[in-house]
Amino acid sequence: MFDIAPVSRERDEQIQARIDDKTKPRGALGALEPLAAHLARLLGESPEIKRPAMLVFAADHGIASAGVSIAPPEVTAQMVANFAAGGAAINVFCRQLGWQLEIIDAGMLSAPPRDMGVTDCRLGAGTGPIYKRAAMTLGQVEHGLNFGRERVRSHHAKGANLIGLGEMGIGNTSSAAAVMAALMGLEAKDCVGRGTGVDAATLKRKQMLVEQALLLHLDMLTSPESILACVGGFEIVEMTGAILGAAELGIPVLVDGFIATVAALAAVKMFPQSREYLIFAHRSAERAHGLMLAHLEAEPLLNLDMRLGEGTGAALALPLVQAAANFYREMASFSDAGITDVTP
Amino acid sequence: MFDIAPVSRERDEQIQARIDDKTKPRGALGALEPLAAHLARLLGESPEIKRPAMLVFAADHGIASAGVSIAPPEVTAQMVANFAAGGAAINVFCRQLGWQLEIIDAGMLSAPPRDMGVTDCRLGAGTGPIYKRAAMTLGQVEHGLNFGRERVRSHHAKGANLIGLGEMGIGNTSSAAAVMAALMGLEAKDCVGRGTGVDAATLKRKQMLVEQALLLHLDMLTSPESILACVGGFEIVEMTGAILGAAELGIPVLVDGFIATVAALAAVKMFPQSREYLIFAHRSAERAHGLMLAHLEAEPLLNLDMRLGEGTGAALALPLVQAAANFYREMASFSDAGITDVTP
Repeated sequence: MFDIAPVSRERDEQIQARIDDKTKPRGALGALEPLAAHLARLLGESPEIKRPAMLVFAADHGIASAGVSIAPPEVTAQMVANFAAGGAAINVFCRQLGWQLEIIDAGMLSAPPRDMGVTDCRLGAGTGPIYKRAAMTLGQVEHGLNFGRERVRSHHAKGANLIGLGEMGIGNTSSAAAVMAALMGLEAKDCVGRGTGVDAATLKRKQMLVEQALLLHLDMLTSPESILACVGGFEIVEMTGAILGAAELGIPVLVDGFIATVAALAAVKMFPQSREYLIFAHRSAERAHGLMLAHLEAEPLLNLDMRLGEGTGAALALPLVQAAANFYREMASFSDAGITDVTP
Repeated sequence: MFDIAPVSRERDEQIQARIDDKTKPRGALGALEPLAAHLARLLGESPEIKRPAMLVFAADHGIASAGVSIAPPEVTAQMVANFAAGGAAINVFCRQLGWQLEIIDAGMLSAPPRDMGVTDCRLGAGTGPIYKRAAMTLGQVEHGLNFGRERVRSHHAKGANLIGLGEMGIGNTSSAAAVMAALMGLEAKDCVGRGTGVDAATLKRKQMLVEQALLLHLDMLTSPESILACVGGFEIVEMTGAILGAAELGIPVLVDGFIATVAALAAVKMFPQSREYLIFAHRSAERAHGLMLAHLEAEPLLNLDMRLGEGTGAALALPLVQAAANFYREMASFSDAGITDVTP
């Protein structure tokens, strides 16, 4: 369904030699050096980030009405209106850093007004409550993967060569925790956290409902697609499709926090070669995020103790990705600069 | 000598209320929230970073000829020429991120050619070898503090309200380690590290020479000024002056890695109220850096495992400082956006 090529390692020696010839001790730019090498693999010998596109997928969740979040379900629509008006954190960071921001309705309870400028990729009016029935059908999963792919293709056609992923959806940490548990074979308690900040009683209820959902669908949790259908969310499915779509095009994806990483995990379980197109932006304050990152052998660029979502972590990591591409392209070599090579 | 006011906490409640009214759960922007509060304290209710100035101080060290570094002393001048030509990592990052970059000769072995565009703040032709005699006189220390202050004043007069500090000087981790040991009452072995990457034998020699320097000057290590004179470096002294000069003007300083943090420590030991004007940018791969950061109760914004200096860590942290100021200024409040306040 997705045609994803493994990333070529043919030029690896040449790439590393170019990095090692830059006017600095070997390895002195730390995490930016392997990142630069990877961007050179993906984007060629003159890697430059162009028209980076931040896709924020919004959706509602049946489980939200069971009170698993600090906010009531109507906050999804209110926050989408805030995005559309330019007043949210993700707007501020996208304006500052040069991201093209697109807000996508993956399946909110009600479609936002047409003139709001939100892209319609609706899979339904919120998912089913996963502790009672499936979130969606396999047909909706397929549809959602294609929606995600199409959004990425559209930005790529306008010149984007980096995609950022974010989300908004009251209740989506519950759904994400269930998907994570099913994909990794973990228990609910290892995957459910405080989200944007629930209290102990709500945390307990959230954990029980996720556990109940995993039990209810136990026989169906056999493939990533089926897991997404049973316990997923519309925004998670579309983010998964966006990742796979970017990997098809050979361009990197900056993955935000907990929810976006669940989509990344689903993508990698479907197509392991998609892993190489992922750059992890931020280590979320959500504890379970660390388990997924370890599983994916990912070391995020930032660790700012944020727990907001919206793509804010991915947005803030852009300057570091640009810095890696820029030093690779622009820094002088020892021979250019007439400097004594300090290589031991 | 420096007239530094303590930062006013009078508006703290108002500032926190404004942050808490932003359209996000409380604390969800993690480390950016206290940073925003601090910028509002320093720069007022509409904090905006203007004309940020990166000052890179270069100097030579008598101890360098004893072979304590991976590079010979002439590399200081070669790298300064590279800065002047725009080819170093700090040039790339400053161009990308909008820093005004100034390269300052604090006391290299030879003055660079006049047409190179390097600012002359020379305190001498390299320091004395600290294991044999004092690095400089107390008069040079005073002179250097003033040079640093003047550079900051000059940028502030042109509109800068944020200063970044970096350095270049073969051998300067040895000098910095000696200053750190003397200021904190630690042993050489706790403060000496691999710098930009020396081998085990060089590390051992470096440690012994720093130990020897601390013993030689033992009776004189009684005040920050005297410590700087005995075992300091010209760039360290001028960075200390720059910090104190910025604190006098009430503007924040983004402190780079190990060497710049030693200058920060010296500034704080001289004028404890200068601590509040410091923002720590990057946790260096140099182990001893962590000890100083803990002592200063500082949690840097970035942790990219870099060990280059030049101000690269400080340069890369600028977008995060801007993001903190920008969300404070620009994000909608719950009432503005008509959103259900999710405050627990």
